[in-house]
Amino acid sequence: MLGLKHVAVNSFNENIAYIHRDCADFQADDIKILTKVEVYGGAEPVYAFLQVVDDAKLVKPTELGLNTEAFRQINLPEGAKISIAPAQPVPSLAAIKRKITGNILSGGEYSSIINDIAAHRYSNMDIASFLVASGSFMTASEVLALTEAMIGEDVIRWDDESIVVDFHCFGGVPGNKTDIVIAAIVAAYGLPMPRTAGRSLTSCAGVADTFAVLANVDIDEDKLRALVKENRAAITDFNSLSIASTGKIISTVERQLGIMQLQHLAASILSIKLAAGVTHLVLDIPVGPNSRIRSTNEAMRLRKLLEYVGDMLSLEIDAVITDGSEPIGNGIGAVLEARDVMKILRNKPDAPQDLLEKSLFLAGRVLEFDPKLRGGQGYAVAKEILTSGRALEAMNRIIFAQGKAPQPQLGHLTRDIVANRSGVVQSINNERINKIGVLAGASQYPGAGLDLLKKVGDTVEQGETLYRIHAVNSNNFAFANSAVDGNNGYEINTKGY
Amino acid sequence: MLGLKHVAVNSFNENIAYIHRDCADFQADDIKILTKVEVYGGAEPVYAFLQVVDDAKLVKPTELGLNTEAFRQINLPEGAKISIAPAQPVPSLAAIKRKITGNILSGGEYSSIINDIAAHRYSNMDIASFLVASGSFMTASEVLALTEAMIGEDVIRWDDESIVVDFHCFGGVPGNKTDIVIAAIVAAYGLPMPRTAGRSLTSCAGVADTFAVLANVDIDEDKLRALVKENRAAITDFNSLSIASTGKIISTVERQLGIMQLQHLAASILSIKLAAGVTHLVLDIPVGPNSRIRSTNEAMRLRKLLEYVGDMLSLEIDAVITDGSEPIGNGIGAVLEARDVMKILRNKPDAPQDLLEKSLFLAGRVLEFDPKLRGGQGYAVAKEILTSGRALEAMNRIIFAQGKAPQPQLGHLTRDIVANRSGVVQSINNERINKIGVLAGASQYPGAGLDLLKKVGDTVEQGETLYRIHAVNSNNFAFANSAVDGNNGYEINTKGY
Repeated sequence: MLGLKHVAVNSFNENIAYIHRDCADFQADDIKILTKVEVYGGAEPVYAFLQVVDDAKLVKPTELGLNTEAFRQINLPEGAKISIAPAQPVPSLAAIKRKITGNILSGGEYSSIINDIAAHRYSNMDIASFLVASGSFMTASEVLALTEAMIGEDVIRWDDESIVVDFHCFGGVPGNKTDIVIAAIVAAYGLPMPRTAGRSLTSCAGVADTFAVLANVDIDEDKLRALVKENRAAITDFNSLSIASTGKIISTVERQLGIMQLQHLAASILSIKLAAGVTHLVLDIPVGPNSRIRSTNEAMRLRKLLEYVGDMLSLEIDAVITDGSEPIGNGIGAVLEARDVMKILRNKPDAPQDLLEKSLFLAGRVLEFDPKLRGGQGYAVAKEILTSGRALEAMNRIIFAQGKAPQPQLGHLTRDIVANRSGVVQSINNERINKIGVLAGASQYPGAGLDLLKKVGDTVEQGETLYRIHAVNSNNFAFANSAVDGNNGYEINTKGY
Repeated sequence: MLGLKHVAVNSFNENIAYIHRDCADFQADDIKILTKVEVYGGAEPVYAFLQVVDDAKLVKPTELGLNTEAFRQINLPEGAKISIAPAQPVPSLAAIKRKITGNILSGGEYSSIINDIAAHRYSNMDIASFLVASGSFMTASEVLALTEAMIGEDVIRWDDESIVVDFHCFGGVPGNKTDIVIAAIVAAYGLPMPRTAGRSLTSCAGVADTFAVLANVDIDEDKLRALVKENRAAITDFNSLSIASTGKIISTVERQLGIMQLQHLAASILSIKLAAGVTHLVLDIPVGPNSRIRSTNEAMRLRKLLEYVGDMLSLEIDAVITDGSEPIGNGIGAVLEARDVMKILRNKPDAPQDLLEKSLFLAGRVLEFDPKLRGGQGYAVAKEILTSGRALEAMNRIIFAQGKAPQPQLGHLTRDIVANRSGVVQSINNERINKIGVLAGASQYPGAGLDLLKKVGDTVEQGETLYRIHAVNSNNFAFANSAVDGNNGYEINTKGY
């Protein structure tokens, strides 16, 4: 028996057990090879990954240390008597080996994998293996099985509502925060929209990052229910909900790897929406040569996949293929994107027109889920709600109800990137712009990002500013500057100018 | 500036930086998202993966803790002034994303990946992604590029020798420790054989595990050179050498994942042999329905791959395809395997004949690398060396020179697995037997394993013992027992009996 000690280290959702090299219960040679243990003493055994300690001040030979994640799970006080044993092998890991060699996995296998991840039986390395192994190809039934498994046990019920709508975008286009404008319009119209939003995985800002500039997004289930009842819409960081918990563990690994495969994204989005009790969902699939989805064929395959999974799980899906050839809006990065959104809601003349039009178009699609609305009227209704100021009122109510955020400052380290010749902006490379923004510190710092002053089709004079970099710290500023000097992401055409 | 603190935790070759949540140099929100940092202050910046601490006794807000791996690399005393910054993105990670989507990587890309792994710029998760992404398919030139990159800078030179031989097996067959018998015969014959051996990754015992039962295997370059000069052969745990260091980092991840892809194994074996200065190599490729390599076609493709890589890197390879349809020898697990090997070297009548014959055959192939030996004479010479007792003498000298090991005890928790009907042993499933052995505690405990009393073709009566399980602790004993009750790995044919 060992005495339990809390080692107050947070290890990205991974359970770690710290054992002294001279621990009485193990021989030094065993410890070298042993990697996973089960810790007994609590209500259920807790899986943990072993790290060896050489300092008795940290963990004594008569103790077992657990990091914060594992300590929370075992739910015992420090000093409690516990015992450990080599962990029983995790059977679902065999399925991952089958996937590496190109097999199609069954629904049962996906369900075991997800259950084992939820029970913290996978190390982050194991999760990475699963993501990469399944990332190269998955059949439609595999995506369905993964989605179903990821919904989990807890589902939010909306007994008072006949339909519950939501909107989500597949990403790959910097800027493009239609979500917040849509939520305001839908709230003003009166359909319930519990928008479960994510933090950025690989982009300059997730919807939750951008909305966090305006309001508190740490909203749990009860609060969400109350907010939607009161204001019809709310935007919550999905991590603050307890639903679809495996998705959170997986996305921690995806963020660290910087990898996000399309089919995982599909399963992740749909499982969260289903767990949130959404019945009707508009999905935006932007297509562009430098977007996440590169061709209309690929977008069409994704749309059919989404429709298939939605049909099988009784989720009404309207998947819309949109133009993702260049960034949408001017601001890229949370603070700048929030500025654009508020300009649109305030009907400012300098609001970005591309973001405005796209938001109205998509909001119209969401509104048309309402059986009472005549087909084809969505756009016009959305536009009326926006221009009348009702959308702004709704947004102000939402922000007030969720709690106004202490708005972070825009990064004060700036550099204007200028045109090296006169001409017309021919293209703006989404991936390059995203990369420069991430190097500048977005999404890590809400105030970091890029402000695009010119878009495709705009005329520029040599020396005129194309965009402005905002960084919060000097390291990121240097990274972004050095990346820009290689390739600033803009192509300028001088022909016929 | 922060004060350096050594947090004496060993984290499987991964650099970890421990930062207090209230660290003055970062805001709490940044820490949530930041995962990799560069630590400045030593001769070179050290990459580390960030974990957040909530206990000032562990790391103060004015300190930065480094785990043992990272603390060794920064090579500064505790209290030294250091600073940290977000890590610059690792460019070679982009190559891994290319591999996930099915691309062929260039030599330059493999070289960058291996350099970045060697410089500890990859988290174990990143390494897992690389292994899984490249695990499903690699071209011959990709395997060549990976092998070349993994050789590294340090290569052992044997200026006094015209040829340096070695032997390695691709595994998948329990038992099968021909290696130690071969080393004894080759040493007695007089060819230099610096056998770089591995610890088990997924099997019941690696060659280094088994030889560690007999002798010390922690042998560094200088000692290896002296031993080979003195006795012509030595068997070292490759981890105790400083060569091919990336291979060690990668194999730590492979062991934790329990995944070992054939092409990585090929690159790993060949790079270690080349770094060890080997010029002539016999490779054993066992083929069987439950072995690592399942068909003769697959074995032939592997042989051609090995020959191609060997030719390009000036390593003479004799790749031999052998029968891997059932375990070889009786003992499975380090102590039992060492027993079998010593029985053979001592010419005991109860020595396992299959292991004896295979060892002589393969030792003969190694001996035939000697230009002075007439073609086809290898086997006969090997047999004469063994039966005359010269192989035993050579082995005793090797053991004495390396340092005799305190022989671990055979596991005292035993169970005899008996035939449930009379008949003839039709087949023994390698994978199942290996799994039961691993569950029983092999390779973690040298004394754990299986002792096979019956082999394919043997007649058994109902109730007669097929094999005996040896376990060291009750948990493993229970795991093995419950696995055996499902499927003991033996098939008994009653027809015509």
